[in-house]
Amino acid sequence: MSSFQSEIKTIEWHKTKSGGYSIMVDQTKIPYAFEKVEVKTLNSMYNAIKTMIVRGAPAIGIAGAHGCALFALELLAKIAPKEALEDITKTSIPLNIDKNEKKSFFEELEKGFDYLNSSRPTAVNLSWAITEQKKVVKNSKTLDLRELCVNLINNAIKLENEDIEINKKIGDYGATVVPKGAGILTHCNAGALATVGYGTALGVIRSAFAKDNTIEVYADETRPRGQGAKITTFELVRDKIPVTLITDGMCSYFMRNKMIDMVVVGADRIAANGDTANKIGTSTVAIAAKYYNIPFYVAAPKSTIDLSIKSGNDIIIELRDEEEVTMVNGKRICAEGVKIINPSFDITDNSLIAGIITEDGIFKPEELEEKLTTSV
Amino acid sequence: MSSFQSEIKTIEWHKTKSGGYSIMVDQTKIPYAFEKVEVKTLNSMYNAIKTMIVRGAPAIGIAGAHGCALFALELLAKIAPKEALEDITKTSIPLNIDKNEKKSFFEELEKGFDYLNSSRPTAVNLSWAITEQKKVVKNSKTLDLRELCVNLINNAIKLENEDIEINKKIGDYGATVVPKGAGILTHCNAGALATVGYGTALGVIRSAFAKDNTIEVYADETRPRGQGAKITTFELVRDKIPVTLITDGMCSYFMRNKMIDMVVVGADRIAANGDTANKIGTSTVAIAAKYYNIPFYVAAPKSTIDLSIKSGNDIIIELRDEEEVTMVNGKRICAEGVKIINPSFDITDNSLIAGIITEDGIFKPEELEEKLTTSV
Repeated sequence: MSSFQSEIKTIEWHKTKSGGYSIMVDQTKIPYAFEKVEVKTLNSMYNAIKTMIVRGAPAIGIAGAHGCALFALELLAKIAPKEALEDITKTSIPLNIDKNEKKSFFEELEKGFDYLNSSRPTAVNLSWAITEQKKVVKNSKTLDLRELCVNLINNAIKLENEDIEINKKIGDYGATVVPKGAGILTHCNAGALATVGYGTALGVIRSAFAKDNTIEVYADETRPRGQGAKITTFELVRDKIPVTLITDGMCSYFMRNKMIDMVVVGADRIAANGDTANKIGTSTVAIAAKYYNIPFYVAAPKSTIDLSIKSGNDIIIELRDEEEVTMVNGKRICAEGVKIINPSFDITDNSLIAGIITEDGIFKPEELEEKLTTSV
Repeated sequence: MSSFQSEIKTIEWHKTKSGGYSIMVDQTKIPYAFEKVEVKTLNSMYNAIKTMIVRGAPAIGIAGAHGCALFALELLAKIAPKEALEDITKTSIPLNIDKNEKKSFFEELEKGFDYLNSSRPTAVNLSWAITEQKKVVKNSKTLDLRELCVNLINNAIKLENEDIEINKKIGDYGATVVPKGAGILTHCNAGALATVGYGTALGVIRSAFAKDNTIEVYADETRPRGQGAKITTFELVRDKIPVTLITDGMCSYFMRNKMIDMVVVGADRIAANGDTANKIGTSTVAIAAKYYNIPFYVAAPKSTIDLSIKSGNDIIIELRDEEEVTMVNGKRICAEGVKIINPSFDITDNSLIAGIITEDGIFKPEELEEKLTTSV
């Protein structure tokens, strides 16, 4: 297992004396190039999330946490003398900020956090991480604003590190339900590149493969954006885990021919009753799996579970651009005059889910609410 | 209904004094161009079928019938004097062919028919049409070989004309089960361009739309070759029937949101028990439809029903090139090193099918064998 964990770090805070910035893999270039980009402002982070330079619910969460820290640094730079910010761990040089400036700093900060939260609506991890940063803000109100920034940065780094630890736990729990030599179908990319590292669904696969290298992965292409074809195959080939790419309609063929023994996917938001929002096409796979009596698992950190949402019907589904459907590799694939509706996620009914694999163990959808409420 | 029927003629025998040739829409160019190509030899016809210049089970059947006639003309041209073939309807100029030449003509002819039949394995219509032409050969053995050619040509034209008549009957029967204002999902293209004209599944939609222009169509993209995106949207936009293009994984989303009231697809081969081979992804849609209690219909001429095959397990599924999956619009969509299995069809279990819409009416899968045996 440990051979994979350090291979990809999708998003990482780069610390400098004056605070630092976010460095992330540009996922729009995978599998053609593996490049990192530096993100240094709130607006850049908003765009990185919106245009899916960073994607995957847990990775978006960390991007949100980074964005909050970046914005605090940005706001502070506007009002504080430059020399006071050369080393933000030192508070000896006075900030010379009056009460009104401080009040307006916190008002602006909150607006910025909420703006960042609006970049993508479906994955709960974004609002979860921003809420975590809001708690830091609340607990730092009486401190020097440099200390607030340091606290936001340190909290972002803490969430980063926890993400990998959580994924390894998810992987280990998940590996216990992978049959020997299993064919495992996954949809979209819930891998290292959807998280800080290691992955959730692909974390399960990585942990399982470390114990049994006879397992095989089937990766759904995942139209319209093709994250399965582009990102999941990239990750698995890199880790030398055998992977067969299939188109989204093919799952029934491979299930009927007994080549698939289990399905494992990630999640963007899990309601209290276990209904799960995940990449469009997930519920179609879950229905096929049920039909063929193949267990369908969701692998996700507890931060993806939103107990404030009763059922999948209440989860907001993001609708994205028409061109994601109509254009592939720069060329139109359909007649002019066709209508497009492009939902980015769908809801998998809890009755289709064999188990939700978390860092605390594998839960049945119906026991989620009770187990999570009591464990907190 | 009649406003659509003459708009597209996918494949047509072009008669000339010396026999003629096949003209077909080049479907690899749709929706970018609507061009016709002339096919004049057995080898060209084999390649046209293999490379999907002509595709769709009923259209492939007619292409097969044309190919048989073309090959008879080709073989005859090798052994008969040129002047004897200037007008093949006239037998006054002697052919000067001896007994051995005639014997070898029929042997070559049969080999050519079988070669053509091997171009694609799954659609039964190809072997059905070639068998029809073999019957013509059998009944013409004592005739002048020009008369044999004329008979093969006339039989091909008869099958062409019948195809459109059959599709109109399928359309009319099918329209009776389309609910008022229905959202109708279809997969791949079983339209005018999959047949000689009018279409089977799209024939049902055309007939329904003629009676009720409030219906809406949802067209599955149908990866890997994208016939739904390319060909179905082209046909429906041309006929001003509202069509929304969706990716193959999206069907569950639209079904869950109650936007789809029925599914209708074509077929490549229907076994005696009603199990249906159709474009890859069809059975995935059928399973989703069953889950949401949405009726799933197959529209196909009786020639698609193969009573010699007991169940779908015995239908041979064509595996096609890796590049259909890995390359889109000239660019690779996945990492190097990924494995590909590319089945072109899948089997929809009879239990998932509400009815099979034929030119003789709508049958339940389980009554197919009895009804068809007694009606012959």
